[in-house]
Amino acid sequence: MGAEITVSDAGEFGLIGRVTAELTPGETTLLGPGDDAAVVRAPDGRIVATTDLLIEHRHFRRDWSSAVDVGHKAAARNFADIVAMGAVPTSLLVGFGAPADLELDWVDGLMAGIREECAEVGAAVVGGDVVEADAITLGVTALGDLQGREPVTLSGARPGEVVAIAGRLGWAAAGFAVLGRGFRSPVQVVNAHRRPEPPYAMGPRAAELGATAMTDVSDGLIADLTHIAAASDVRMDLVGGRVPVPTKLREVGAALNTDPLVWVLTGGDDYALAATFPERTALPPEWTPIGAVVTGSGVRVDGRSWPVGGHEHFRG
Amino acid sequence: MGAEITVSDAGEFGLIGRVTAELTPGETTLLGPGDDAAVVRAPDGRIVATTDLLIEHRHFRRDWSSAVDVGHKAAARNFADIVAMGAVPTSLLVGFGAPADLELDWVDGLMAGIREECAEVGAAVVGGDVVEADAITLGVTALGDLQGREPVTLSGARPGEVVAIAGRLGWAAAGFAVLGRGFRSPVQVVNAHRRPEPPYAMGPRAAELGATAMTDVSDGLIADLTHIAAASDVRMDLVGGRVPVPTKLREVGAALNTDPLVWVLTGGDDYALAATFPERTALPPEWTPIGAVVTGSGVRVDGRSWPVGGHEHFRG
Repeated sequence: MGAEITVSDAGEFGLIGRVTAELTPGETTLLGPGDDAAVVRAPDGRIVATTDLLIEHRHFRRDWSSAVDVGHKAAARNFADIVAMGAVPTSLLVGFGAPADLELDWVDGLMAGIREECAEVGAAVVGGDVVEADAITLGVTALGDLQGREPVTLSGARPGEVVAIAGRLGWAAAGFAVLGRGFRSPVQVVNAHRRPEPPYAMGPRAAELGATAMTDVSDGLIADLTHIAAASDVRMDLVGGRVPVPTKLREVGAALNTDPLVWVLTGGDDYALAATFPERTALPPEWTPIGAVVTGSGVRVDGRSWPVGGHEHFRG
Repeated sequence: MGAEITVSDAGEFGLIGRVTAELTPGETTLLGPGDDAAVVRAPDGRIVATTDLLIEHRHFRRDWSSAVDVGHKAAARNFADIVAMGAVPTSLLVGFGAPADLELDWVDGLMAGIREECAEVGAAVVGGDVVEADAITLGVTALGDLQGREPVTLSGARPGEVVAIAGRLGWAAAGFAVLGRGFRSPVQVVNAHRRPEPPYAMGPRAAELGATAMTDVSDGLIADLTHIAAASDVRMDLVGGRVPVPTKLREVGAALNTDPLVWVLTGGDDYALAATFPERTALPPEWTPIGAVVTGSGVRVDGRSWPVGGHEHFRG
């Protein structure tokens, strides 16, 4: 029956009640949804903040991803930005635009996905906004706490350092390629596109290990390392053979006649972490060294430039 | 010439460069736009946060408001939420969705308006996101600092207290009515619709004076006081004759054959502040007492209930 009830039936205030009904406050939540603004503890005396807009058809498709998937991913991509600074996510604010005929079931699923991803990192939804819109629109803002650490920016990489990655690379791109050809399997790569699994704990851990620069891989490894290279005024020399290409991606690549290394090097949306560390850093097993920071500019793989890849808005 | 150049010509990264070019860091900005996330000082150990979605045709019309106006208003409505907690705005994050054929001039105007409104309160744009969208979409998040004060919520009003307002009421509604009938004057009310002037300083000031509950008037005075009444489990008894109806609104009301008191009591978008204070509080002249908090529920004017008015999304 739920499928027939729309947000228009609930009205703005009914919808607000619905999306806030099952929220629980986080450890840092002093005042959650329902007032003019939220109040969040900032134990560190600083706050890390990032915001994203996600719009249906541009960032997700309802026939490819469930509402729960969209909720997970909307939260995950923002939390990945927070941990890429070496911080711990504490709070999420969600602006939600919906067409009047959107099923309330979809809204329930979205919020369930957001809540689940929040629980994964120990964060809470503290505020939001609900408006009518032609396309489903999400304005998501995440806040985080540095716990006394210095933020790890894009600009701290120095020649002689090690480039390393943590988390999955290429999986979401493989899933996107599979979905784009009308398939729904293998589920491992399709699910990777639907719900990224950023290596959240590795962000603060990298900061503790002395990471000099870090970013989450949202546009593609080459593209995002290029951002670090530009901000740090260095070059990244990667060794192709050190970049892991999992068996599953090789299988999917063979089936789709695509070199899986392209997915790994240029595919976005997995929200892995890429960072630079001082040369002698003892890296835990979650981090894979893939190259070195040298003088120069840009990113090379085995001495050659790669097309950056990645999606740029307004460029088709 | 600028009018012929579109965001599509600039591309995502060109557009990001454009919108961030003239930004200046604020007093609390530790790391501004350009990294994975911003880092903002939270001197108080707490942060106040609020978010809004604004979508063209739903929240603004480009033939009624200039890009600069839209920028002012987008920032103002979020800053009003921050000061309504008794806090001082410090930072703004702006998610910006634009059609590919939007003129770059419009973007420049939008950012100019946002920067000007930030300057008004001493805040800075610290981060954002740029995506392609069918309709101009703004996801705006404001952060604020309580400076050691306790947040003034919706739920602290108690019987025996005074209800007071600061700032303009009814002006934006009169302007909206004028524009809706195809007129462009009187400019005072039309401009009030285009650029609200929230009494920013009065938020922290009210907190210092001991305000027990406060809100910014975004939906209309009756509607927003009803939120306080419900959250505080009290009734608000207003005296109609004490609610100021400026001469200009009387003139516009006469011209449009509308009772201007309706604009004052139910018109939103002026972002005045409404608050409750202990009975003997010596209110500065910016605050006008308009009634009393009593036991009961809802809001009455001269003993009678008023239709709440205000716009509810999904209710046409």
